[in-house]
Amino acid sequence: MSPESQDKNGRHKARMQSRKKVVDEAVSKALEERGIVVLYTGDGKGKTTAAMGTVTRALGYGYSTVVTQFIKGTWECGEKNLLMSAAHPLQWHQMGTDFTWETQDFDADKAAAIALWEKAREALRNKEVYLVVLDELTYALNYRWLDKEAVLQAITQRPREQTVIITGRGAKQYLKDIADTVSEMRAEKHAFNSGIAARRGIEW
Amino acid sequence: MSPESQDKNGRHKARMQSRKKVVDEAVSKALEERGIVVLYTGDGKGKTTAAMGTVTRALGYGYSTVVTQFIKGTWECGEKNLLMSAAHPLQWHQMGTDFTWETQDFDADKAAAIALWEKAREALRNKEVYLVVLDELTYALNYRWLDKEAVLQAITQRPREQTVIITGRGAKQYLKDIADTVSEMRAEKHAFNSGIAARRGIEW
Repeated sequence: MSPESQDKNGRHKARMQSRKKVVDEAVSKALEERGIVVLYTGDGKGKTTAAMGTVTRALGYGYSTVVTQFIKGTWECGEKNLLMSAAHPLQWHQMGTDFTWETQDFDADKAAAIALWEKAREALRNKEVYLVVLDELTYALNYRWLDKEAVLQAITQRPREQTVIITGRGAKQYLKDIADTVSEMRAEKHAFNSGIAARRGIEW
Repeated sequence: MSPESQDKNGRHKARMQSRKKVVDEAVSKALEERGIVVLYTGDGKGKTTAAMGTVTRALGYGYSTVVTQFIKGTWECGEKNLLMSAAHPLQWHQMGTDFTWETQDFDADKAAAIALWEKAREALRNKEVYLVVLDELTYALNYRWLDKEAVLQAITQRPREQTVIITGRGAKQYLKDIADTVSEMRAEKHAFNSGIAARRGIEW
């Protein structure tokens, strides 16, 4: 080994030892075992997609999962095709309307959201369910389709082992307050704004 | 319908019509059909998970997908369990080392990264591959395991229909420059920092 390479290895080793110490210390303190609330918000790409990645992950261990989608009613999506086609312990509920700006009917949208919320609330009471996804829930709350207090209560009083993922732009502080993990997806750039069409298998 | 409800419906309808106009205009301008480069960076949760959600999505349409993971060598993960267990058109390559702060050996890590990059470069030349994931590529670049210019060239000269997803903290400007979509996952809160253990089926 050249002296230069030895030197580089030495620096790398010191940096990695210091990194390992930080990681080991954090791991030794992170001992509480329970389900969490994850909130993905912000205007960037990746919120629903990250939720769907987690669904795939949970199902990979055979954990029972319930997906509820509060906006994307009748859209086709690849992950649903794949995950529903095999015998996974997965339920998938949608609002059964189109995007709300297509329907433009507040009462119909609200009724569909409330019906969907009943499915979500049922999952949030069920100890057998490991993961509940409340996709685009922020819209249903911000449009006041759902009763905020009832939603917060159902989430915070869920079974201890259950994890909940909430997605959507414009999450209010009350959602951040009940979440254990909050990631804000910030859009630095979006292909759509450069005139590139949304793509099958990538965007939906 | 009560007057109050009519009024609310009227306001909602006006808001949704305006929203529909904005969306329709954007859709009418987004006509370019090609694969894109998506970059997920930042310190928050959701980067790899969003990439895995997209893999599930692409495979849901039967699109050929290649995943390369530049750090997470020997970890078990639920999505790999699930997606590799069925006959999907999916290749999954890992560095075959442990986290780099566990090994603390620069030359061994670099050799493993270069070997993995060869797999990635092969995929980036293959017109049959619809989606290539370069998970945690930023580390391999920031540690200078890989030649930056060779990586940028392989990505920008890929087949026109191919989409590439790059993940990892600390993406430099040269990666943002070649990306069509950049989302920065900003950690507002992380359960791990509140002493909650990483959870099977959720974190890995």
